[in-house]
Formats: sequence, structure tokens, C-alpha cells
Amino acid sequence: MIYFDNAATSWPKPAGVIEAMRHCIEEVGANPGRSGHKMSLEANKLVTGTRERLASLFNIDDPEQIVFTLNATDALNLAIKGLLNEGDHVITSSMEHNSVTRPLYVLVQKGVKVTKINCDMEGRINLKDIEAAINSATRAIIITHASNVSGTLMPVGEIGSLAKRKGLRLLVDAAQTAGLFAIDVKDMNIDLLAFPGHKSLMGPPGTGVLYIKDGVNLVPLKEGGTGSHSEVPGQPEMMPERYESGTLNTVGIAGLGAGLDFIKSEGMDKIRKHELDLAERFMVGTGGVKGIKLYGVKGVGGRVPMVSFSVGDRPAGEIGAILDQRFDIACRAGLHCAPDAHRTLGTFEQKLVRFSFSYFNKQEEIDFALASLREIVETNMPAPEGSEGCGC
Amino acid sequence: MIYFDNAATSWPKPAGVIEAMRHCIEEVGANPGRSGHKMSLEANKLVTGTRERLASLFNIDDPEQIVFTLNATDALNLAIKGLLNEGDHVITSSMEHNSVTRPLYVLVQKGVKVTKINCDMEGRINLKDIEAAINSATRAIIITHASNVSGTLMPVGEIGSLAKRKGLRLLVDAAQTAGLFAIDVKDMNIDLLAFPGHKSLMGPPGTGVLYIKDGVNLVPLKEGGTGSHSEVPGQPEMMPERYESGTLNTVGIAGLGAGLDFIKSEGMDKIRKHELDLAERFMVGTGGVKGIKLYGVKGVGGRVPMVSFSVGDRPAGEIGAILDQRFDIACRAGLHCAPDAHRTLGTFEQKLVRFSFSYFNKQEEIDFALASLREIVETNMPAPEGSEGCGC
Repeated sequence: MIYFDNAATSWPKPAGVIEAMRHCIEEVGANPGRSGHKMSLEANKLVTGTRERLASLFNIDDPEQIVFTLNATDALNLAIKGLLNEGDHVITSSMEHNSVTRPLYVLVQKGVKVTKINCDMEGRINLKDIEAAINSATRAIIITHASNVSGTLMPVGEIGSLAKRKGLRLLVDAAQTAGLFAIDVKDMNIDLLAFPGHKSLMGPPGTGVLYIKDGVNLVPLKEGGTGSHSEVPGQPEMMPERYESGTLNTVGIAGLGAGLDFIKSEGMDKIRKHELDLAERFMVGTGGVKGIKLYGVKGVGGRVPMVSFSVGDRPAGEIGAILDQRFDIACRAGLHCAPDAHRTLGTFEQKLVRFSFSYFNKQEEIDFALASLREIVETNMPAPEGSEGCGC
Repeated sequence: MIYFDNAATSWPKPAGVIEAMRHCIEEVGANPGRSGHKMSLEANKLVTGTRERLASLFNIDDPEQIVFTLNATDALNLAIKGLLNEGDHVITSSMEHNSVTRPLYVLVQKGVKVTKINCDMEGRINLKDIEAAINSATRAIIITHASNVSGTLMPVGEIGSLAKRKGLRLLVDAAQTAGLFAIDVKDMNIDLLAFPGHKSLMGPPGTGVLYIKDGVNLVPLKEGGTGSHSEVPGQPEMMPERYESGTLNTVGIAGLGAGLDFIKSEGMDKIRKHELDLAERFMVGTGGVKGIKLYGVKGVGGRVPMVSFSVGDRPAGEIGAILDQRFDIACRAGLHCAPDAHRTLGTFEQKLVRFSFSYFNKQEEIDFALASLREIVETNMPAPEGSEGCGC
């Protein structure tokens, strides 16, 4: 099987990730920070270790400003709902994932005003449009670092400078970039950074992260047992417990730590280059396949290692089903939980097929996929019987 | 090492749990319900399989009424905040965990009225007190199935009958009972059942569950990508996606499925009997240790397999530290994230030492713990230097 669905969840994971998870559940097991006994302290050490590695990767001074969540969506909900109040205005883009647009949709009903900046057909945002949208009620800018549909990178550093100059908070959704592209929360003036552990950070599912800049006070999304200050009737103030209630996914967090070790030992630049080389090979190769249209920016200079495309006027779901069932290529065809992005690209009806690559993909897999697409086009291969295009 | 902290997280896990997690991350990997490809469908099958096993265990007709969360706290927050509105009145007990009291504390500030029924010194609630507290604004009763401090079982079936008769919703926190005591959501008239996967259900951390009775409409705690109905601007109505945004902890859920298989194959009655036998052996044995005072109901007839105790007037943290460092016994000494329960038992200042047993504990471990406690008492053993009693 060829796995090109790494933008959803990366697979396979480095062997060290699986071993770290086994070690944690078999040999450490206990609840971190809840009890005073040795095994609990050992579990705590695993969690703290992952926090420290993350802090180092993103240039975060204090690891305790890093909060573990269920997934990036959980982190984004905490950031968005914890930050914005009735009467606040927030600026975002037309390329956001439902994990941003849906919490905002709920907040609009509670009196938050949202401006969605329209991006161009390649998924690019114009900084001047952001600046023009700022008004006296504007509280924050919420932007994806890279769209999960077009793959187009957003100028987060420039947006951060603008946010800083205007006194706005910047929340970045780094679901498609964390672990792959350099993110420096200080240089980029990022106040809130949300990302999953199970994509380019190579950890397991069940791991999401929110970095909260010191001084940014969010209303917690959840309250509960924190293993500290149990006598306080409300949620304690101290970090990271304020936003981490209940038992953490220790096993997943231990695995994420090993994913971070893998990235460090291989080198993020090397990993990114390999993946972008694959994306480029695929993009160039599609030039030889009639009817394939690529989306996002030209070339791989301004994108993450994913390529979304259409095949003639065929529904994306049909192509995805053929690739899966006839060629054993796993990809994602549909709306990618980002209908706004598809509206921006003009692909809301047809939808798109998305190939997203990982460090473990090989050139031969790209070549096989290109040959498969060529065969599909040249034979006008029908969708497998009984297959329904995934409309998600 | 002797592990008596199973009420926090059970350990060790059955071998099948670890194998199921390895299988999931190594061989299935992908995101369930997000893509149409085979590996994604396989992941979906794992998640669905665990949902079905849970439905079977708790007599839930439709597995899709089961929602996976990060932990029981996450599930309780969704239930509590999703159900209650300004002006609503809710009845709860004085034995609840912070995962119930803290969300309620926040809601009080938003105009929800809360009545906490005082339980007696053994942690028992009087049904008549609940009935007397009901008024025209009462919307729900929220009760733990068993306190995580006293271990005392609550009469959930009788409370369910009362709730049904009065037209109230019943939310049960089954953190200490799910997997160990029979829970039938229909027989017991439970509308909302929250529990963790990593305690007596023997799954890994990072797994929480909320059962939502058909017809109970909660406001979602989080919105985001659901892999279905991506075009809807708000959260889709369909279950379970309405309350499951973002990537699930597939690996953890697969492990939980294996935990449920283990319980089924061993037999819940046999598991419970083994654990309660251990609790009884310990309780009887403490009769021979001067100065040990047990809390909760007499005997093991009305309790879960945990025993909280004090040693003379020594702070619980000291005893916990000695047990850990001198005798390699892992337990939990402190407030157990349940200060209200400690106030009820009169142990808020001294706190308590808690032993909580699992199917994998052995009689000899109980005997060793009793001998250790005897030695601590008889020699008036001091706390290890540099140890600080855990105050949580």
C-alpha cells in the first residue's frame, strides 16, 4: 500500500515512537503529577520531557506555557473560545479548516464579529487586506500556517509583525507545518500556537498542543482535577494545570517525545527537503498526464509537501476510490474539512484529490502514482462499483 | 514495586491492550472516518468495535450515542456545560470529584444554581435529601457512582428512579465503577454516563467516554472537523460526530477495546470479587495495626475495591512517602482531587492514604503492605528526608 494521506495523520511512525509508547504503558503506566510515588514521578518526567522538546523546537522560553490537548481541534477551541468575548472582532482567512471556522461560527452567534479575508485562487492572502480589516474592536488574527487543501504557506512572520504593531493577538494553526517548517514563536510574534502531535511531529493520535504566550489569559474550556491545588474551588491559576484537567494521554505524549527526537536526529531541513522533492517530482510528473489540474501556488517554494488536484471534470471521490481500490494508493479526496478553502479555490462542487507526503515515502511511489493516474485518464477508468466518493 | 494506585490509572494493563495499541499504530495508523481509503476504514472499524463493546457492556441500544473524549473530565465538562443553562437548578452530592465541582463552580457564576447534598461520615447519601432539594427549576441530578475517596457506592438505581419520576436528567460519574460494577443505563434511568477508559476498563490513558441518551441534546463543548457534513457551517447534528471533533485517539480506543475484551473473557464478577477480596483482606488486617482508621462504609458490601485510611494523626503525605520510598508501595496520599469529599469525611486537613486494588494485585501484596504499615506505626518511622507529602 502507498500512503499519501500524511496531512490527515502521518504513517508509518518512527520505530522509536512505538517503542516509547510501549515503554510508557508497560513500564511507567501511572498517572503523572497525581501521586507522589516513583512511578507517577516517572510518568511526569515523560510528559515534562516532551514539553521541553516542544519548547526547544518552537523557541518557547517556558515549557509550562505548553498545554497538552486531545488534538489540534481541542487546542484551537480552547484558544478561540478562551480568548474572544462578545463585542470582539477577529480577522481570519478564507482558507481555514473547520476547526477554526466552526468555533468562530458559534462565537458569531454570541456577538463576536468575524472578518474572513478572501484569499486568491492559489490560496494566498494579501497582507494589505488584513490591515484594512482592522478596526477598534479587533482583538486577534487567526490564521493557518498552511492550508490543508492548497498547501499554500501563509506569511505568518509578516502577519505577526502586523499583529504586534497593531496590538492584536495572533493565533496560528500549524496543523500542516509543525515539525516540518521552522516556527519561532518569538520571531514570528505568535501568541497562541495550536498543532497536532500526529502529523509532521510523527507522534500518535490523541495528542494536540496549544502554546500560550505568558501573559495571555484564556478562559479554560474545561475544569477538573489537576493534581495540584485541589482545595481551590475553581480552576487553579498555575500553568499548565490551568488548562490541563483530568488524566493526560501520557502514552501518546511519550510517543510524541520520541517523534521529536526522531526529527532532531534526522534534521528537520533534511526531512522537509525529502518531502518537498517528492511533491515537486509529482507536480512536474503530472505535466505528462492529460487533464490533471494542480491547485495552490506554482512549484514547491511556497507550499507544504502536499498537492491537491482534479482530474478533468470527474468528481474527486471517484478518483480517490479508484486509486484506493485499483492501485492501493491511500489519499484523501473530498472537502478536507475545509469548505471555505474549496470555495476559494473554486472546487467546492468537484472537490479535490489530495496527495500528502511523508519522510517515509519514496520516489518510486510517486512514479507509480503518476503511472496510475495516467492509466485512469487514458482508459477513462470508471469508479469501482459500489464505491461512493467520500464527500468529507 | 507494589501498585495500589489503580483508582488513578490501572496498571499493569492486560497484554492484549498493549498488543492492540501496537497493531493500531503500526498496521492501521490512519485517521478513522476521514478518508475513504482502506486503511482509514480499518481504523474506523477499530473505533466502531470499541463503541459496540461499550454499548453492550452498559446496555446502550445505539453505539453511536457513545462519544469518545480525552478523559472522563472532558466527558463531564461536555455533559455539565452542554446540559445546564442560566436559571437551571442542579442537585449533586458532597462527595464529588473536582471534575464535577469545578465545572459547576464556573456555571454558578453564570447563573446556574447548585445544591450539594451533604453525605454522612461514611460517604452515604440520603435519598430523601435529594428529593427535598428538588424545586421547579431543577433540571438534573449529578452523582458519582462511587466516591474516589471513601469508595462508598451511591444508590444510582434509586436516584435514577427518582429522577425519572420527577422528570430530571441524571448524569452519573462512573470513574470508579465502569468495568467493575454492573451499570445498565436503561434499568438505572441514566441519561448521561461519563467514565474513563484507563481505570477499571483497563484501557490506556487518553480515553474518556460520554454516553448521551437519545433525545438529550447537549451544546457541544468543541466544534471542528468531523470528517462528515464538512459543508455545514456549524457543528453537524449527527451522532457521534456532533461531539467528536478532530482526530480521535484511535490507538487508545483500540487499546480500550482490548481491555473490554479482557473483562468479558475473565468475567466482570470474577474480577470484582478478586479485588473486593483484596480490599476485605486489607480492611480486616488493619485491625491488627494500631492507630489505623478506615473511612467509608464498613466492610466491602457497599464499596468499590479501594480503602482510604489515616495513621494516627500523621499527615497522609508522610505515610505515602514512606510507603513509596521505604517499601516501594505506590499509592495515593492527599486530597485525591476531591476536597468536598474530604470535608465530608472530616479529613480535609490530615488528608488520607488511599489503596486501590486491581485484578493483578495479589494477597501477598496486601500482607506485605499490612506488615509495612505495622512497622511504620510500631517504629514511629519518620518521613524520608526531603520528601514532601503530596497535597493533591
